[in-house]
Amino acid sequence: MRNIKLTLAYDGTNYHGFQEQRGSGLPTIQEVLEKILQKFTGRRVVIYGAGRTDAGVHALGQVVNFDAAGWPIPTARIPLALNGALPDDIVVREAADVPEGFHARFSAVSKTYCYQIYNRRVPDPFYARYSYFEPRELLLPAMQEAAGYLLGQHDFAAFRAQGTPVKSTVRTIHQLTVERSASLIRITVKGDGFLYNMVRIIAGTLLQVGLGKYPPQTLAGILASRQRSLAGPTLPPQGLFLVQVDY
Amino acid sequence: MRNIKLTLAYDGTNYHGFQEQRGSGLPTIQEVLEKILQKFTGRRVVIYGAGRTDAGVHALGQVVNFDAAGWPIPTARIPLALNGALPDDIVVREAADVPEGFHARFSAVSKTYCYQIYNRRVPDPFYARYSYFEPRELLLPAMQEAAGYLLGQHDFAAFRAQGTPVKSTVRTIHQLTVERSASLIRITVKGDGFLYNMVRIIAGTLLQVGLGKYPPQTLAGILASRQRSLAGPTLPPQGLFLVQVDY
Repeated sequence: MRNIKLTLAYDGTNYHGFQEQRGSGLPTIQEVLEKILQKFTGRRVVIYGAGRTDAGVHALGQVVNFDAAGWPIPTARIPLALNGALPDDIVVREAADVPEGFHARFSAVSKTYCYQIYNRRVPDPFYARYSYFEPRELLLPAMQEAAGYLLGQHDFAAFRAQGTPVKSTVRTIHQLTVERSASLIRITVKGDGFLYNMVRIIAGTLLQVGLGKYPPQTLAGILASRQRSLAGPTLPPQGLFLVQVDY
Repeated sequence: MRNIKLTLAYDGTNYHGFQEQRGSGLPTIQEVLEKILQKFTGRRVVIYGAGRTDAGVHALGQVVNFDAAGWPIPTARIPLALNGALPDDIVVREAADVPEGFHARFSAVSKTYCYQIYNRRVPDPFYARYSYFEPRELLLPAMQEAAGYLLGQHDFAAFRAQGTPVKSTVRTIHQLTVERSASLIRITVKGDGFLYNMVRIIAGTLLQVGLGKYPPQTLAGILASRQRSLAGPTLPPQGLFLVQVDY
């Protein structure tokens, strides 16, 4: 086995998420990449992704691994070779040799996501694909205070989409920041793992706080309740980015 | 007549340019906007645009005007009303009342365009729609020196796409800067008017200089020759932005 790790960036707008969705008819990032690897290597290649980004979600640093056994190209030249064959909205940023035991998903120790809110009275057409538009004024200090309640190890059952069976809903958030840079508000979350739609629900809940609909300390009660209905709405996918995966 | 001036920003990727192209089948910015104005005003509305951006070209500050006679909405509320009906990739930034004699195209005294080159070894999927990708190293000082030859009043026949009859090919460039900001090289041109594809040919010629294919002083000879074949290639539309129109 020749285990290769790739770091990918992609604009997820035109894809049905990272992972193969049988029968959806839309391409996925995984399908596109596997097809190209099959062409280069002459055999069926399966890639493993660190996170299953949903339809419309973007990545700055998605990580995948695959077995490149028999492909004679040096690792350093893999990004250039793949980028020449990939569509413009998927880019291989880096390639590296990793030990046989490395698995993009199971070896990951933490992941960082970012949710972008475009917050100005008038929208910007160049951010429409990459952010959620909120024209009302947002109370940044309240959002920052609310974020503090989510730090650390908690049962995040209230911040989880229905219908996805998992062994445990306990996760640890190492870092959660809310920052403004010009018209963009960025909610950045680093954690040991995330439940389905967890970041988009956290962003939706912090948005309610920013709009003054919940006081920041409500977050403690929402966490304790384990009730999805008490948290805020799931914000749409186009504001979400998988920023980094740590090993 | 109630003459209204609108300032528009749009992502031109999904449009067949600003102006109606009969028979192309693709929507144009003008068509989309006129249809919405017709719905609001209850009658056929014709809009006049300052510049006919081509298919795939973007705008930060396109200007149009139209007769809003009979539409009872106050001018200050027009952006919000139109943005609620427009697709996400077209935004009305401002609306203003202008004198009856104002015409977005004929009243313009100068226009500013910007051409973006993404210059790094590895492409960025989030700039694919908004720049031309050039992975080779570019000699910025040479590009800046070459730009100096184009300043002022000249016959720009060498920087003009074939087959577009115009009375004169003499134009004045007031400003032409080449600047790097991280991985983006921005060529910004302000002039009293532009020939068909002129900015994209200037960008393509400066790119050749940046690659070391022409020395900067070649620009004087290209201008004097009036031969399109001596200038560089026409760079693709996705790097071009209509930034501002001055009146």
